[in-house]
Amino acid sequence: MKNYFSSSFKLGVLGGGQLGRMLLTETQKLDIYTVILDGNSEAPCAQICNEFHQGDLLDFDTVYNFGKQVDLLTIEIENVNIDALDKLEAEGLTIYPKPKNLRIIQNKAAQKKFYKDHDIPTAPFNHYAYLEELKHSYENNIINFPFVWKSARFGYDGNGVKIVRSIEDLESLPTGECITEQLIPFKNELAVIVARNKQGEIKTYPVVEMEFHPEANQVEYVICPARIDEAVAKKAREVALKVADAFDFVGLLAVEMFQTENNEILVNEVAPRTHNSGHYSIEASYTNQFEQHLRSILNLPLGNTESKVAGIMVNLVGAEGYTGEVVYKNIEEILKVDGVTPHIYGKKTTKPFRKMGHVTIVNEDINEARKVAQQVKETIKVIAK
Amino acid sequence: MKNYFSSSFKLGVLGGGQLGRMLLTETQKLDIYTVILDGNSEAPCAQICNEFHQGDLLDFDTVYNFGKQVDLLTIEIENVNIDALDKLEAEGLTIYPKPKNLRIIQNKAAQKKFYKDHDIPTAPFNHYAYLEELKHSYENNIINFPFVWKSARFGYDGNGVKIVRSIEDLESLPTGECITEQLIPFKNELAVIVARNKQGEIKTYPVVEMEFHPEANQVEYVICPARIDEAVAKKAREVALKVADAFDFVGLLAVEMFQTENNEILVNEVAPRTHNSGHYSIEASYTNQFEQHLRSILNLPLGNTESKVAGIMVNLVGAEGYTGEVVYKNIEEILKVDGVTPHIYGKKTTKPFRKMGHVTIVNEDINEARKVAQQVKETIKVIAK
Repeated sequence: MKNYFSSSFKLGVLGGGQLGRMLLTETQKLDIYTVILDGNSEAPCAQICNEFHQGDLLDFDTVYNFGKQVDLLTIEIENVNIDALDKLEAEGLTIYPKPKNLRIIQNKAAQKKFYKDHDIPTAPFNHYAYLEELKHSYENNIINFPFVWKSARFGYDGNGVKIVRSIEDLESLPTGECITEQLIPFKNELAVIVARNKQGEIKTYPVVEMEFHPEANQVEYVICPARIDEAVAKKAREVALKVADAFDFVGLLAVEMFQTENNEILVNEVAPRTHNSGHYSIEASYTNQFEQHLRSILNLPLGNTESKVAGIMVNLVGAEGYTGEVVYKNIEEILKVDGVTPHIYGKKTTKPFRKMGHVTIVNEDINEARKVAQQVKETIKVIAK
Repeated sequence: MKNYFSSSFKLGVLGGGQLGRMLLTETQKLDIYTVILDGNSEAPCAQICNEFHQGDLLDFDTVYNFGKQVDLLTIEIENVNIDALDKLEAEGLTIYPKPKNLRIIQNKAAQKKFYKDHDIPTAPFNHYAYLEELKHSYENNIINFPFVWKSARFGYDGNGVKIVRSIEDLESLPTGECITEQLIPFKNELAVIVARNKQGEIKTYPVVEMEFHPEANQVEYVICPARIDEAVAKKAREVALKVADAFDFVGLLAVEMFQTENNEILVNEVAPRTHNSGHYSIEASYTNQFEQHLRSILNLPLGNTESKVAGIMVNLVGAEGYTGEVVYKNIEEILKVDGVTPHIYGKKTTKPFRKMGHVTIVNEDINEARKVAQQVKETIKVIAK
C-alpha cells in the first residue's frame, strides 16, 4: 500500500467550496497533504488547505497543469474541464471519480441515456439538442403540458429545472440542450450515498428522505433514516448499488431517487461526490461521508456506513432581504439544545438563498430529532450586519 | 453576544501541538479565525490555522506581543509565560483559563496546597523547596521508602514523577522544588473532564478509566464509560465539579483521580485544557471536548456531554527502535474494522514513545469495543521508513 499519512503524497482536489472544506477536516485528521484548485481566492478551503491554487476549473490548461503537480486527483464539484482530466489520466494520473463517469454525469441527457441503457429505473424522457426542437415537438403534440424541463448542462440546486405548464413557461426557457420528463407524482424524494473503492468493495449509506416545505416546495430537512417501509428502503439501496455498479464507479456517488405512489423507485440524478444529503453523517454515522470519500479514492477499506443515532440536517441559507457581512442570528439559542451542531462554511458575505452552512440535529429518537430540527429552523436566521 | 462566526474576531491559542490541531477542526467547523503561537515552525497546527506565529511560549515579550494581536486568548499547553498573561489580563484581554488558575496548576506544590485549602480529597504530601530538604527529611526519618516524588514544575506525561524505593533512587532525582506523596494503592485511575463557562454553566463528562498494561505500568486504553460502580462514578463527577468550582474555572478542566481500595476518590492532578483522556469524545460524545472548550471560553451554552456510544482510545506512540520518517504500519488492517478511526497528528518524524496519534474505537457494546481496541493495539505499529 502507498503511504498516504504524514508522507510526501499529494492529494489534489478540484474545487474549494464547503464540500472541500469538510473533506479537509478528514485529510487533517489523517494528515494527508491536500492541494486545492478553485477560481475564488476566498473559497472556503483557501486558508486551511496545505496548498491553495487559484484558477478556473473549466480551463483546460489550468486543470491540466494543476493535475501534473499532484499524485491523485479528485473533485468536490463536477463542473470541471474533463478534456484535461482525460489527458492527465492517459498520462498516468489516478483520477477518482473517473473522467469518463464525470463526462456522462455532467450531461443530464447522457446520464438519462445511461440509465436507460443499463436498465436502471428512471422517468421516461425526451432529449433535445436545442429549445427549438422541444418547441417543435410541442407544436406537433408529441409532448404536452405539464412536463419537467431540465437543462442538459450544469444544472445546480434546482437551477436548470423547471415545471413547464404553459406557452409562457416554454417561451421563457434557455435555448440550449435539454431533456423533458413526464411529471410523475411521487410520495418521497430519497437519496442513497454509495461508496466504492478500486478493488470493488462497495457499501451504501442508509436511505435519507428529503422533507419539503408544504408550500415553498423547498427541501427543509434531510432525515436519516428515511421514514419509509423497510422494503422500500431495501429497494432504494439496491437501485443505488446498481447505478454505482453500472458506472464501475470509484469514489462516492449520491443517488437521488423518487418513491412513486406505487412504491417504485426511479433514479432522478446522481452526484459523483460527497453530497448535501450526507452531511448528517458527520455527527450520526460511524464513518462520515468525507472520510469515506478518502477511503474509497485511496483504495482503503471502507468504513461502517450505519448510524450511531438518528440525524437530521437543516441547510442554513441566506435570508431574503439581507446582503452583506454575515451574522448568524440566534445561533446561541440553538446551541442550548442537546444534539445540535452548526457548521459554518466560512463565507464572509451572505445573500438571499446562498448556502452559508448547515445544522445537524442528532438524537436516539428520530421523532425527537424532528421536533428539534423544526425548532432550529424557526430560530436561527442568516442575516447581514 | 459577540459575533464569533465568520467575523473579524480573532481567537489566539498558545501552543500548536495535537490538541491545538484538534481544536482547529472545531474552529474551522464554526469558522472562528484562529491565530496560533508555537516554538516549532513544524508544529501540527502550523500549516492549517488562519495565522501561525513562531515564538517561545515561555518568553514574556513573545507571549505579551502575541496577546496584543488577538481578541481572546486560550492555551493548549499550560507551560507558558504567566507573567505576560497577567499583564495582558490587567490590560483588559480576556484569557481563559484564567492566568491565576494556570499559576497554581503549573506548580504541583501549589496545586496540592490548593486542594488541601479547599477540602478536596487528595493524597497527603510534603513540599520541599530543594531536593536537599527532602534528603534531610529522609535522613531524619520524617519520610520513609517507598514514596512518590513529583517535580513541582513542568512534569509531563509521567516525566517528573518517580516512585522512590531506595537511596539510589533518591540520589538520582533532579535537585529542584518537589513534593512527595504516600504511595497509596489504588484500584483504578479515573478522569473526569469538566466544562464551565463564564456565566457559571457547568457540566461534567462521564468518568473515564485508564486501563494499564499489566506489566509495563503504562496506560494502554482510555475507556468511556469507566467500568466502575454507579456510586463511585457519581462521587468522581462530584469531586471533579468541586475542583472546578474551587478554581472558579472557565474553560475545560481535566481532573485525574484515583479510586482507592476503599472506593475513596483522591484527586491526583488536573490539566487546565483539553486532554488525552477526552479524545474518545470526538467519535463518541454528542459534543466533543474541543467544541466544548470553544463553547466554554466563548461563554456559549455548553453542549451535551453524554455519549452516543461507548468509546475507547489507544495512543499511537513511536515504536522502540525506530527514528525517522514515520510510517503507520498496518493502518489499512485496522481500517477494516467497524468503528475504528485513526487520528494522525501530523508529525513527520517518529522516535521511540513520541505521541504520533491516537485511534478511537466506538461500539454500542463496551466489551466489544474493548476487544477491538486490543486488536488495534496489537496490529498498528508506528515505525520509520
